[in-house]
Parts: sequence; C-alpha cells; structure tokens
Amino acid sequence: MKYLLQIDFPHNGPFKKDFEVAFSDLAKDIANEDGLVWKIWTENEENKEAGGIYLFDNLDDAQRYLDKHTQRLNSFGYTDLRAKIFNVNETLSSITKISL
Amino acid sequence: MKYLLQIDFPHNGPFKKDFEVAFSDLAKDIANEDGLVWKIWTENEENKEAGGIYLFDNLDDAQRYLDKHTQRLNSFGYTDLRAKIFNVNETLSSITKISL
Repeated sequence: MKYLLQIDFPHNGPFKKDFEVAFSDLAKDIANEDGLVWKIWTENEENKEAGGIYLFDNLDDAQRYLDKHTQRLNSFGYTDLRAKIFNVNETLSSITKISL
Repeated sequence: MKYLLQIDFPHNGPFKKDFEVAFSDLAKDIANEDGLVWKIWTENEENKEAGGIYLFDNLDDAQRYLDKHTQRLNSFGYTDLRAKIFNVNETLSSITKISL
C-alpha cells in the first residue's frame, strides 16, 4: 500500500532557479531515502510558501521521514509546518490518470 | 509550467473499497477536466480526512477547477476545506524521481 505525505510551510525564498541551486544537494540526499517512491517539490512565490508531496511505499518510512525532515526544517529556521499523511486510493487514482 | 493543487477536508467515510464505489463515477468525470494531468485520491480513516493532489498543466484550469470542486464539495455537505495551489519545481522533482 502507498502512503502520501504532504508538507507545506511559510518560505520567504529563494524560488525557482535559486531554489533549485539552494536545494539540489538536499534533493540528491532525499532521493536515497528508504521507502521513498518520489517527491514533488512545491513553491509559491506570491503566497511565500513551499513544501513537498511525497509518495512512500510503507507507513513506517513515511513517519520516520516526517520526523527527520521536521527536525531538519526546524534547524533551517522554518516554523509553522503543516504535515499530513494519507492512504492513497490507487483504484480511483488510476481512473484519474496516475498509476501509483 | 505545471501547477499542483492540494485539497483536504474532514471526511467521516466511506473509505477504501466503499470510497471507490461511491466516487468512481465522479472520478471518471474528473478525468476529463480541461488541463488536468492527473489526480491522486487521498484518504485517512484514522484521522477522518480525505482529499486530493492534482497536477494541472496551466494555472487558469487549476483555479477554475478549485472553484468548481469547492462548490461541489459544499453541495455534498463538506466544510472546512483546505486548499493550496503551488508551482512545481520540475528540476528538483526530477532529482527526487518523478517526471512532471
């Protein structure tokens, strides 16, 4: 069963290309997380927010990663994190054009 | 450029197979929305929440769909919707194993 972790938080920048440069090394590290299928990086310059949508192949790794990433974001100075873990309904998702 | 819409809301059920049966016709309708690349259906029986993660290929359709879906969810009796639209950082996402 697949699990989706959604995280977002206030973020004053950088955005777009500067965001890529700032976080490409972290992205390479995150790509090797146990249980991670993928992460989508989200950003909204107008609302000054950023976050991530993650797919994990098991709940334990989703929860372990959330704990680890929360501590990391706090160490970067981020606060007011909003995080939720959901089951994915794979049948309905396949109807709406994504295989998980 | 791709846009990610995340929506979640309190949901008392149905979940899993019953959720699929209840919403498969709606899923077929949503699959035909203009600009929609895909939707992931999310549910959390323990926390009594559900939602969706959507990828759109343009911002106008993401905003149009959010307005339409908000009215539909309200007509179903759902309240306290939480919705955010983000840009997707495609370069960082590709490092973390998803092509958008």
